[in-house]
Amino acid sequence: MAQSPIRIIGIDPGLRRMGWGVVESLGSSLRFVAAGTITSDGKADLASRLCQLHDGLSEVVHAWQPHEASVEITFVNKDAGATLKLGQARGIAMLVPARAGLPVAEYAPNAVKKAVIGVGHGDKKQIQMMLRVLMSKARYDSDDAADALAIAICHANNRVGDAARKALMRAI
Amino acid sequence: MAQSPIRIIGIDPGLRRMGWGVVESLGSSLRFVAAGTITSDGKADLASRLCQLHDGLSEVVHAWQPHEASVEITFVNKDAGATLKLGQARGIAMLVPARAGLPVAEYAPNAVKKAVIGVGHGDKKQIQMMLRVLMSKARYDSDDAADALAIAICHANNRVGDAARKALMRAI
Repeated sequence: MAQSPIRIIGIDPGLRRMGWGVVESLGSSLRFVAAGTITSDGKADLASRLCQLHDGLSEVVHAWQPHEASVEITFVNKDAGATLKLGQARGIAMLVPARAGLPVAEYAPNAVKKAVIGVGHGDKKQIQMMLRVLMSKARYDSDDAADALAIAICHANNRVGDAARKALMRAI
Repeated sequence: MAQSPIRIIGIDPGLRRMGWGVVESLGSSLRFVAAGTITSDGKADLASRLCQLHDGLSEVVHAWQPHEASVEITFVNKDAGATLKLGQARGIAMLVPARAGLPVAEYAPNAVKKAVIGVGHGDKKQIQMMLRVLMSKARYDSDDAADALAIAICHANNRVGDAARKALMRAI
């Protein structure tokens, strides 16, 4: 019996820029679908900016119809104000797919890096280099969109389990 | 010409319990309308809890039709994880009234306390004692709902102050 691919949206939350990336996962294979960046107007008040992120992400979910969502658990070490801001954006990033009926998985940054570059640390360049290896057709317009694709891939790997992870390692 | 009262919703954001309180402000007079507490299921996953808060607050805004919203700027000193959680709930607290077309004002906790108890510090008991003085008919089912009423009163006072300042400027 032929299986249907699972379409996953990865979201990299941020108040100024929210990256998103959609991939399809079938067994151990991964296919790039789409990626992009939703921005909020830095001059607008906070409530309006949250609305902009909400509306932008709702459009993306409506347009690409993912089955599951994956959001990074992000921390900011700078200060409580920055963490609160990020939290507000992250609330929107989780609310939109959940309201659309999607299960929402959460992954720590080191889990995302481990899924894509094989180790729990590394920079944006390494992630983007590995994205080219894992999905040669991947296209993205920002670091945040690339990170979002990595977050989607992390969830895809997690779903398919050990067998697929081994296949992925062979592909690498 | 008779003025219409302005209906204000105050919101005290929290992931476990979100307090809300609606007051009507006309000139320098304040009237209690309603107050309550929206809770999220601590056993549910984070995305579902954010949906519960969203749906609960949407119902309240729909039922009481406030004209303006007021949300406390809350910080948690415990740790970044707690601040991130609070931020997520706060994102929902700002999104819901903003999407309903309400202007959303933000006030620091000491501004709220100053508006209600006259000084920038004080405990929940002092706030609730002053609520009884300011609005004898006020009824609330939790400390969070009482705090939300205080947040609404803070905005009502601030609006009146703004109007008085504008009138004064015109007179000058």
